[in-house]
Amino acid sequence: MDFINQMQGKQSVKYFATPLILEYASVCGSKENDGPLREHFDECCTDDMFGSDTWEKAESAMQKRTLETLFKKSGLKESDIKYIFAGDLLGQLIASTFGIIDYEIPFFGLYGACSTMGESLSLGSMAVAGGYAKKVITMASSHFASAEKTFRFPLEYGNQRPYSATWTVTGCGAVVLGESGNERLVPKAKIKGVTTGKIVDYGVMDSMNMGACMAPAAADVIRANLEDFNIKPDYYDRIITGDLGYVGQKILFDLLGAINIDITKNHMDCGIEIYDSEKQDTHAGGSGCGCSASVLCGYILEKISSGEWKRVLFVPTGALLSPVSFNEGQSVPGIAHAVIIENMEV
Amino acid sequence: MDFINQMQGKQSVKYFATPLILEYASVCGSKENDGPLREHFDECCTDDMFGSDTWEKAESAMQKRTLETLFKKSGLKESDIKYIFAGDLLGQLIASTFGIIDYEIPFFGLYGACSTMGESLSLGSMAVAGGYAKKVITMASSHFASAEKTFRFPLEYGNQRPYSATWTVTGCGAVVLGESGNERLVPKAKIKGVTTGKIVDYGVMDSMNMGACMAPAAADVIRANLEDFNIKPDYYDRIITGDLGYVGQKILFDLLGAINIDITKNHMDCGIEIYDSEKQDTHAGGSGCGCSASVLCGYILEKISSGEWKRVLFVPTGALLSPVSFNEGQSVPGIAHAVIIENMEV
Repeated sequence: MDFINQMQGKQSVKYFATPLILEYASVCGSKENDGPLREHFDECCTDDMFGSDTWEKAESAMQKRTLETLFKKSGLKESDIKYIFAGDLLGQLIASTFGIIDYEIPFFGLYGACSTMGESLSLGSMAVAGGYAKKVITMASSHFASAEKTFRFPLEYGNQRPYSATWTVTGCGAVVLGESGNERLVPKAKIKGVTTGKIVDYGVMDSMNMGACMAPAAADVIRANLEDFNIKPDYYDRIITGDLGYVGQKILFDLLGAINIDITKNHMDCGIEIYDSEKQDTHAGGSGCGCSASVLCGYILEKISSGEWKRVLFVPTGALLSPVSFNEGQSVPGIAHAVIIENMEV
Repeated sequence: MDFINQMQGKQSVKYFATPLILEYASVCGSKENDGPLREHFDECCTDDMFGSDTWEKAESAMQKRTLETLFKKSGLKESDIKYIFAGDLLGQLIASTFGIIDYEIPFFGLYGACSTMGESLSLGSMAVAGGYAKKVITMASSHFASAEKTFRFPLEYGNQRPYSATWTVTGCGAVVLGESGNERLVPKAKIKGVTTGKIVDYGVMDSMNMGACMAPAAADVIRANLEDFNIKPDYYDRIITGDLGYVGQKILFDLLGAINIDITKNHMDCGIEIYDSEKQDTHAGGSGCGCSASVLCGYILEKISSGEWKRVLFVPTGALLSPVSFNEGQSVPGIAHAVIIENMEV
């Protein structure tokens, strides 16, 4: 089957029939509304409850608004979509379960911590390129309050946060992936291939320093991508990690520098971009699977679509932490999934 | 791309290049050791802690033993496997994270509640049939004690259980899927196609009656499979649900009967088979994603491999419940994923 979808190297796939990003949408919360990327999101809701009575329902409501926006922007109907690949940070994926429950679309639930948008784009693009679906939706979300409650402390506790801590983004991003050809929609970008990450554990035990937990996984999957495709970092206009923040970025540069890979000139991190860290008191930056998902489905895809960036390696990064494993003394391993996204003219 | 992988109907895929089940393995706990299927599992560990000091680590240790058994039985090495698709019931999939952490294999984390083995077989077979991987592993596990602690009460509380309740199986099942041809391993079975389930919510609010929560989703995906492939129930030697138990089975028969689909003659439920309900005090039957996964990777694949059953529709069933959503008054929706597994001679 190698002629159909080239299997490139150990961890990667290069598509023969390149799946297209046909449309995208993003909805965020009030803190993102105050941040520097505000104009790039489809909507920022100043009510972080999104009209709901619990934080979890609020996250589901945000997912629904994102899907509504996606259907509106694309003009597509529910019946046009064969599968939805989605996930979030909450136990048993309840934000996604109740976010998509009103849609009659076959569902694959995914958990990759904050790397989930990379995982959903990878599996969604495999489904389209494999000929299993003409169109799929891939989506990920996080919500500051539901995540703090799950992983750290209830907001009412008012705990202090070290400078290494990141701020979970209240945000959701979703894209429609579709087959090449026969399409009335103008494609925004294409997915050339993916590199799937392994679990990488450096034994970090600090749940308030997610950047340090995730940086080794990001370094590993970026190295694998460059090796599998036999390319140099400057092949990409940008190599964009999910939510390493300032602390994780420095570790990433150090780890890659040690194996002679220099990405300092073209690296960007969604967690660093989404907030004005000094003005907004967000310490090391933004995090959560909604961070990379919402920045992709606005800022990044705008730049790729316009041609300002020809080729991007999108690398959402996840810390595989649960309150149970952490309190039982387990480390916080990381995982990251890389997706090659290109301008249509490339 | 239709010539490569036929897209059959709304929710299904029929493979052109049929992925093969090259090997399988299952490891269970002490209660399963006392049950009627004991001889079909590779191992039943009478120490439910699996040598660990927490229930969560025990579940991870059980996954490791299953993978070790799978590698031993197949003679394959870690480097032969391109991806692992795995999941469990715990928050943020920690049983799987720490179960596979020692293996250097790119990882897709999945959550489908007790339907996870169906989800992992679906995505794993798509990856193989799409030409993205020569071999993948798909796996799911559950553990009675880690699940009770997560979803209901700590074991020490000694709560009473209604007769509608099921007993979470301590078990893990894993298979190696591989491409057709060029293979020194003797294939055990093949995957002809899959039908992916939607979230189905009948508004059931009883977390002690999982059968009722999941039966509507099972009915929906079985109906979709029969419609998409234009076949009748007797096309299959067995239609095998994951863990509906006695209560859910009755509801399934009623729901399908109402649309003139009769599966009473060839239906089997893994949750009913795995325990002797009267002798073992397991009430409505077994449950958990380890239930269908372990029964598949023993009893079911033995029957298919031997030719006693030519064709099976394997339908793991999941209840999309979290303690948070349940305590916040949300219903318990269901999901189920169907996989067509055939004898090699068919």
